[in-house]
Amino acid sequence: MIIVLKPECTDEQIDHIQEQIVSLGLKPELSRGVKRTLIGVIGEEDLLRSAPLEAFPGVETVMPILKPYKRASREFQAEDSVFDLGHGVRIGGGALGMVAGPCAIEGHAVLLEIGTAVKAAGANILRGGAFKPRTSPYSFQGMGEEGLEILRNVGDELQMPVITEVMDPRQVELVDRYTDVFQVGARNMQNFNLLSEVGKTSKPVMLKRGMSATISDLLMSAEYILASGNKEVILCERGIRSFDNSTRNLLDLAMVPNIQQTCHLPIIVDPSHATGRPELIPAMARAAVASGADGVHIEVHSCPEKAMSDGSQALLPDQYAGVMEELKQLAALFDKVIPVPQEQGE
Amino acid sequence: MIIVLKPECTDEQIDHIQEQIVSLGLKPELSRGVKRTLIGVIGEEDLLRSAPLEAFPGVETVMPILKPYKRASREFQAEDSVFDLGHGVRIGGGALGMVAGPCAIEGHAVLLEIGTAVKAAGANILRGGAFKPRTSPYSFQGMGEEGLEILRNVGDELQMPVITEVMDPRQVELVDRYTDVFQVGARNMQNFNLLSEVGKTSKPVMLKRGMSATISDLLMSAEYILASGNKEVILCERGIRSFDNSTRNLLDLAMVPNIQQTCHLPIIVDPSHATGRPELIPAMARAAVASGADGVHIEVHSCPEKAMSDGSQALLPDQYAGVMEELKQLAALFDKVIPVPQEQGE
Amino acid sequence: MIIVLKPECTDEQIDHIQEQIVSLGLKPELSRGVKRTLIGVIGEEDLLRSAPLEAFPGVETVMPILKPYKRASREFQAEDSVFDLGHGVRIGGGALGMVAGPCAIEGHAVLLEIGTAVKAAGANILRGGAFKPRTSPYSFQGMGEEGLEILRNVGDELQMPVITEVMDPRQVELVDRYTDVFQVGARNMQNFNLLSEVGKTSKPVMLKRGMSATISDLLMSAEYILASGNKEVILCERGIRSFDNSTRNLLDLAMVPNIQQTCHLPIIVDPSHATGRPELIPAMARAAVASGADGVHIEVHSCPEKAMSDGSQALLPDQYAGVMEELKQLAALFDKVIPVPQEQGE
Amino acid sequence: MIIVLKPECTDEQIDHIQEQIVSLGLKPELSRGVKRTLIGVIGEEDLLRSAPLEAFPGVETVMPILKPYKRASREFQAEDSVFDLGHGVRIGGGALGMVAGPCAIEGHAVLLEIGTAVKAAGANILRGGAFKPRTSPYSFQGMGEEGLEILRNVGDELQMPVITEVMDPRQVELVDRYTDVFQVGARNMQNFNLLSEVGKTSKPVMLKRGMSATISDLLMSAEYILASGNKEVILCERGIRSFDNSTRNLLDLAMVPNIQQTCHLPIIVDPSHATGRPELIPAMARAAVASGADGVHIEVHSCPEKAMSDGSQALLPDQYAGVMEELKQLAALFDKVIPVPQEQGE
Repeated sequence: MIIVLKPECTDEQIDHIQEQIVSLGLKPELSRGVKRTLIGVIGEEDLLRSAPLEAFPGVETVMPILKPYKRASREFQAEDSVFDLGHGVRIGGGALGMVAGPCAIEGHAVLLEIGTAVKAAGANILRGGAFKPRTSPYSFQGMGEEGLEILRNVGDELQMPVITEVMDPRQVELVDRYTDVFQVGARNMQNFNLLSEVGKTSKPVMLKRGMSATISDLLMSAEYILASGNKEVILCERGIRSFDNSTRNLLDLAMVPNIQQTCHLPIIVDPSHATGRPELIPAMARAAVASGADGVHIEVHSCPEKAMSDGSQALLPDQYAGVMEELKQLAALFDKVIPVPQEQGE
Repeated sequence: MIIVLKPECTDEQIDHIQEQIVSLGLKPELSRGVKRTLIGVIGEEDLLRSAPLEAFPGVETVMPILKPYKRASREFQAEDSVFDLGHGVRIGGGALGMVAGPCAIEGHAVLLEIGTAVKAAGANILRGGAFKPRTSPYSFQGMGEEGLEILRNVGDELQMPVITEVMDPRQVELVDRYTDVFQVGARNMQNFNLLSEVGKTSKPVMLKRGMSATISDLLMSAEYILASGNKEVILCERGIRSFDNSTRNLLDLAMVPNIQQTCHLPIIVDPSHATGRPELIPAMARAAVASGADGVHIEVHSCPEKAMSDGSQALLPDQYAGVMEELKQLAALFDKVIPVPQEQGE
Repeated sequence: MIIVLKPECTDEQIDHIQEQIVSLGLKPELSRGVKRTLIGVIGEEDLLRSAPLEAFPGVETVMPILKPYKRASREFQAEDSVFDLGHGVRIGGGALGMVAGPCAIEGHAVLLEIGTAVKAAGANILRGGAFKPRTSPYSFQGMGEEGLEILRNVGDELQMPVITEVMDPRQVELVDRYTDVFQVGARNMQNFNLLSEVGKTSKPVMLKRGMSATISDLLMSAEYILASGNKEVILCERGIRSFDNSTRNLLDLAMVPNIQQTCHLPIIVDPSHATGRPELIPAMARAAVASGADGVHIEVHSCPEKAMSDGSQALLPDQYAGVMEELKQLAALFDKVIPVPQEQGE
Repeated sequence: MIIVLKPECTDEQIDHIQEQIVSLGLKPELSRGVKRTLIGVIGEEDLLRSAPLEAFPGVETVMPILKPYKRASREFQAEDSVFDLGHGVRIGGGALGMVAGPCAIEGHAVLLEIGTAVKAAGANILRGGAFKPRTSPYSFQGMGEEGLEILRNVGDELQMPVITEVMDPRQVELVDRYTDVFQVGARNMQNFNLLSEVGKTSKPVMLKRGMSATISDLLMSAEYILASGNKEVILCERGIRSFDNSTRNLLDLAMVPNIQQTCHLPIIVDPSHATGRPELIPAMARAAVASGADGVHIEVHSCPEKAMSDGSQALLPDQYAGVMEELKQLAALFDKVIPVPQEQGE
């Protein structure tokens, strides 16, 4: 950590700051430049993080040198994390997780129809929401536990792992009984108590990036889950807020290699929520795989006109199959595999 | 609601859309323009909101005419809402809520010292965090219930209402036992289950704007609380994410008159979190009152160097007193009152 | 165009607005809904665009139905534009323009060295800046005409078309004498007089998206060039301003299919300026081709340590060759061609 | 400047970087921390700015300590700049510049009518555009020189200084013959050649902040004008791009004290362009003065319905007079003066 002092900083102020550093068990190193005096701090930077150094008289700015996340970083674990999601479906380290399904679970028949179609097209994880975080209190809020049961049953029938969103710390235990993978949505990315709760389970968690989260914010939220004991965090880029409302959000694909430089966790891309426009999804799904993403998350509905949530952004099963054809070719080109779900013995 | 059709939309598609509208009990009105055909929909626009009209073949875009929020709107209630926060402190309708105190509650003595100073300066609501939503799992997370007790005791000693943050639906009952006003933080603005829970209490709720929330997002979150039965929602502008990192966030002061045009709820401005820089807070506090805000929220600490959270953005009690002198003059100029907390009988 | 009236709009106000519409030769169509009255306008929407309808008493909002750009739109020209840049290099309609070279022209030898390397790797357009728009007046501003001469000579020696930036309407004639393709930079995207001047030449223009330009802003700027008579506009996505400073800008790849839906002009992607980080460029270049872009623009320098501008974001020639290997495979997968520059006869 | 090295940086790489620093006449200072090694650089930081240090092998990041602008900074000039705009109207150092007038000059009679009204209300600078930077090539582009003549004549008749926009380096000489103050618009904030040209004149320049300009970008653009010899730069905050389209732009009022901390130039606020909504302008004008701004820029039109540009955001003369009443009271409260234009002798 580097502390930049104001031009008018007095020697008393410098002493006072140095004493504080020493009192934390660290070593200050004074450097008098032509225009500014700096204090470098040698030792565990974390010890200083919670000290409000910028509040000390004479301090102009404080510049951290190290990243604030640890367990999520490549310095903590150099090689890619690989997680087993059940039914032999792995994600990370060259294995792609292809998540597909409707926005909301609406009934057994329709979910089975969609699930059968997406599995045939190559999807290896079935999604469906039972608890829906809707902007309006007057919109359909999901089927709740009944929806979870349907999802579990369809997953079992199709022999593929399932993922569903959890919105509330009080729901974690319930959802845990039915799902293979937890999803924490963008709006809850900094719901720290929820992160801690899913961090206490033993199931993988797909953590979606918040609408205005930096890479550091996202990794710090992953860190909450990791610090609670759960090592299986899958990140998901799903678009951020932007000034151009011609798409629902702005897909930040550079986040994929950016994360991969600094973090060992797998990262999935969700072009459905990122664009909100079905006609842009195939191009962005291809771009996601080409960028090196560890998976793609796409909403599919057999009758978007009747979907109870986000129907206007869903692909039809046929359209999804077309996208998957292209993604398989790209995966092959880049030596990636798309694991096929296996029947699971007792 | 106006449905804009694609140039190539067929008559069959038009019929199909019109049937859907009629089936919802509404009246379609076809209008063939030179370049585009439109369908206007007459009747309760809400009935259409959840129908995924954009997923219908032939539809280019759907343009809503009405705002999606109801109870928060001036059409629902034309006159300003005024809430009583206890000890005779009102907010709204010309009465300003002046919230001040430390970021986190750290102990009885320091809170009493700060509270005494801010009350003397003119603050009428004491703040202090017991549950702190910290970006890092390794940072100080607040004193929890012990902190709530301290806050309640200091509020009683000083005879002023208190406000504190609630982060988790499971904490609502506990926090309700100690606080006069709930705070829902920016990161939880779309924690819909939390909104519903505080919506079931009978205490006012200060709802802070999320870092990338539009005016519509904020009012829809207020709507969750209102729809749960709690009419006392105070909005708070605290800055949004921006590209210029010379301030912590970007204070969007135009939100104040913008909200007031369309919504009857009081709105407070928080220049502390918005700027993160003490030297900019006085100017932004003045601007807030001049813009017509119903209150100002400022973090104050008697020893920012020792603050356990956000110390570097706190004002010293003396600085706060200086700001309040200016705000009182502005309030007088605009015929606003700053209620002085009164002793409360048994 | 749809005019939404305020609830309290009077009949006199409605008549006044309708008279204005009629006086422009258009036909108003009144529609009284349950909560709002609307006036649809039938006829050439453009006639209304410059009328300040929102300034009329009683008007709440005005919603345009049509896009404001014409010549750039697919409605004006359905099929992809294809331009010949010289030496048999085409762009658009399945032909990819691969632009490479140093940020700034620094001398004949170094440009020839870089140009030879990038051509060997598969680049088909050589870039180099002679006039540099630098944020600081104290930075190197480019070699000016001497640089243009070097670029022309190296382009001739290597038999490949060249592109260089023009910053000022007064430079257009000079630059026109040396270049094959004009570049208009992001900072000048709304320098309308410059757009009009390059619009009067007969050379293709690569127009880079401004840092906060919407898709509509970008296409309206293209429209300035098209309306001045020059049909050859190549768009370029180079990243926009965002709140996360871990990359220089935020690459908005969804812009590629988004533009292609609505506009017939080719679009190139520039991952160098978008990310500012060489280690992220290969992934984003692959993603660009996979998204359907009509080309990729990459800065290459044989000695980034000595580059006089933006050295820290340049790829080394070897790194560029590695990227091009992957891009060739992707181009083949998607049935795209990368034209090889041909010797040009007299 | 601090150079942070990668954990794997070799001693050879460190030597290579240090040699580069020494070769520029500076002194490197190596500091080996627990997790990272740093090189501090002592001496004129500017010498290093153009060296692409991040391109050196072994370098992780480079952190500048000093601000990149000089002449605009308080370190260059501690006291506020005050400029005389003619007719005894000063701006800066407690004197407020109140700019008002129509968006575009449309004729002598209407400008005289508006000018007379705004002067009576307290405006001291008359604005009007003769060259209009319009997003669409099909919109009214301004009256050109005829408009400039009208502006000059009305300014002379009313004995008040005038301001008008210059868009093109080729127009500077022409506009200089008619105006008292140049305006450089937001879209041209980084039109560096235009900045240099107005920098060679002897008239004050009002430089509007670009839609995605940081404080540093804005001050670097001011620096271009200052470095060309013109010391009279007035900054103008007019809103930036944001994700909420309920206002035209997002007014960043914290920019006022933020600029004033670091820069001696006066700064004006333009709530007309920032909000685009007349009903929000009064509140934001008040907030601007309360924040410490050195002036307010408001568009006024006597018949917004007939305005040829931006009519829907103009205030009526009566509304402007109402705003000015409040601004005069605020000015008095904060000990600011609003100079009244004086008759000018020969």
